[in-house]
Amino acid sequence: MSEHTSVGIVQAQTAVFDTSLALLSGAILPSYQLRFETYGTLNAAKSNAILICHALSGHHHVAGRYQADDKNPGWWDSMVGPGKPIDTTRFFVVGVNNLGGCHGSTGPSSINPLTQQPWGSSFPVVTVEDWVNSQARLADQLGIQRWAAVIGGSLGGMQAMQWSIAYPERIAHALMIASAPKLSAQNIAFNDVARQAIITDPDFHGGDFYTQATLPRHGLRLARMLGHITYLSDDGMGEKFGRLLRSGDYRFGYDVEFEIESYLRYQGDKFADTFDANTYLLMTKALDYFDPAKEHDGDLVAALRPATAHFLVASFTSDWRFSPQRSRETVKALVAADKQVAYAEIESIHGHDAFLMTDTPYVNLMRAYLSRVAEECAA
Amino acid sequence: MSEHTSVGIVQAQTAVFDTSLALLSGAILPSYQLRFETYGTLNAAKSNAILICHALSGHHHVAGRYQADDKNPGWWDSMVGPGKPIDTTRFFVVGVNNLGGCHGSTGPSSINPLTQQPWGSSFPVVTVEDWVNSQARLADQLGIQRWAAVIGGSLGGMQAMQWSIAYPERIAHALMIASAPKLSAQNIAFNDVARQAIITDPDFHGGDFYTQATLPRHGLRLARMLGHITYLSDDGMGEKFGRLLRSGDYRFGYDVEFEIESYLRYQGDKFADTFDANTYLLMTKALDYFDPAKEHDGDLVAALRPATAHFLVASFTSDWRFSPQRSRETVKALVAADKQVAYAEIESIHGHDAFLMTDTPYVNLMRAYLSRVAEECAA
Repeated sequence: MSEHTSVGIVQAQTAVFDTSLALLSGAILPSYQLRFETYGTLNAAKSNAILICHALSGHHHVAGRYQADDKNPGWWDSMVGPGKPIDTTRFFVVGVNNLGGCHGSTGPSSINPLTQQPWGSSFPVVTVEDWVNSQARLADQLGIQRWAAVIGGSLGGMQAMQWSIAYPERIAHALMIASAPKLSAQNIAFNDVARQAIITDPDFHGGDFYTQATLPRHGLRLARMLGHITYLSDDGMGEKFGRLLRSGDYRFGYDVEFEIESYLRYQGDKFADTFDANTYLLMTKALDYFDPAKEHDGDLVAALRPATAHFLVASFTSDWRFSPQRSRETVKALVAADKQVAYAEIESIHGHDAFLMTDTPYVNLMRAYLSRVAEECAA
Repeated sequence: MSEHTSVGIVQAQTAVFDTSLALLSGAILPSYQLRFETYGTLNAAKSNAILICHALSGHHHVAGRYQADDKNPGWWDSMVGPGKPIDTTRFFVVGVNNLGGCHGSTGPSSINPLTQQPWGSSFPVVTVEDWVNSQARLADQLGIQRWAAVIGGSLGGMQAMQWSIAYPERIAHALMIASAPKLSAQNIAFNDVARQAIITDPDFHGGDFYTQATLPRHGLRLARMLGHITYLSDDGMGEKFGRLLRSGDYRFGYDVEFEIESYLRYQGDKFADTFDANTYLLMTKALDYFDPAKEHDGDLVAALRPATAHFLVASFTSDWRFSPQRSRETVKALVAADKQVAYAEIESIHGHDAFLMTDTPYVNLMRAYLSRVAEECAA
């Protein structure tokens, strides 16, 4: 990563909302805060703002570093920066940690102002619809009437879709990458195993582990290990790990035998040390519940009818979590609803994770599309 | 199931082996017993015997019922019986619970004669190679010099392959259904998540839970839920469950919301109440370790060279646990090794589970192939 393509040292900010937010579940959040970052400069017309929506375990730290010696930059640093596809010399880019998150936005690990205790199990279920509503208020605070684009991969793509439906006049382009208009039974099944791993961990304490000096580490670790398998493709895993052995030959025991075991356990351990279990539950539930066609008797075309945005839908050939077939469902519905839509099915071995990677056709696609968006903003 | 196509009331038997068995790991099992069942009659030439090898959670109770009012028959009752593809009026069929099992054969929950305590964590790791060696001794006791066929699905198919390699003169036909010549990194990864779920369950007690009056129920339940997802196809799950809700509308909580969650949790609960956690670990390890090409620098053709059996390899289009691609690897190696092999890729929506189902093309294939085997036996 050369210096001149990085947004450099960044700082997170906090937006406070004192007006209550009515959630899809019927619950009401009396007040909340959102943690966010911005990169680049909002132009005078305020027409060059891009919102980046994060996926299951993401957050507002999209690009750059907090300190020069940070080991890793933001999670989408490969895509966001000066001269990168989401070019911060042309766009004003906003990353936000979603409501229910564990990176500074109000969530289960935050203090409930009414009780002065962590919310824990009493934090309400939040949905993609709620997130988009909360993001709209953030846009208001930032003086952004209309996003040049809302962009997201996976669960982030669902937010982009919801923006196009709920706030058609406030979004010029919706970019939905490796996403789906709703989860399949298999998707929900994987999520439920992950949730059950967390919920049945004796250290979960019904979600109120914060006051018990314990963490449902085992459960969260399992959830992440399982999730990670679904982010990679069978072929990609085979190419990277195959049947490589840790110590050259079989040892006939339950310690790490194959490299893939070592990798997965490491990923699980790392995640369990840094992520909040209740947030993980919430994020998987938001995935499960998203289904804009539901209010239209399952008719996605009807659900998308209000949209006026232009759409870019992209999928990856080896993604089996949200396979190209799922993106094509979206594309077909958009076409049937007479929307402007471009679709790309990108050859990649990286499975669902490809949306975070830098396969050349993907980067080129994003660069070309967003360059056009930038020209529109400047016009 | 009409009366005349069932083997009827059956009884399990126990074979005791007082001679020690040297295992692939280097460990030695001083003595052991195998629980088995037989259906049909061994002919005078002893040429009509078929061995059925079970998969991960299977056992020796292949067909028939123990009591007339048993709710369920043996696990492959659809395939084994008078007039069925594995026709018990023509074949003498043997089902055996593998070493390390929890259905009567010596395993971790058995009493170690040396300590008079359950084996628990001290039970040695057993492999497909060990199973086949122990099954060969069972064949000796039954007076069967040569199997007309060894048949198995999934892990059972690996045993059929190993029989053909280790005892070429003792097997006329090897039927390998929905199987693979070795696990992929993704396969191992799923197994390891299942094992970690069990091993990190506080009630596992390092495998010695028998004396603690506890069971690692949560871990085993998660392992089964996860396994179950991989047995079904995405489309099959979608067709059966889709996004069907338990109570008609969203309830925004962590109780069962979607029918698929209810189904999976039920399967997990049922399994956790009846299966042994240590056996589950052992069976997944046997899967991981099987790789006959390993001793031949990864050359499966060389590994299969000793075989003289005729082969039937069958796969199912929607099986993503052991996809058709994995069966084609076997077929290609068999062809390259100049073996007699028939291959069928069967259209089915039932995923990996299809090998236990009754899709018509599958049943017809088995019937046709085994009818030819029966003619050979009688000749």
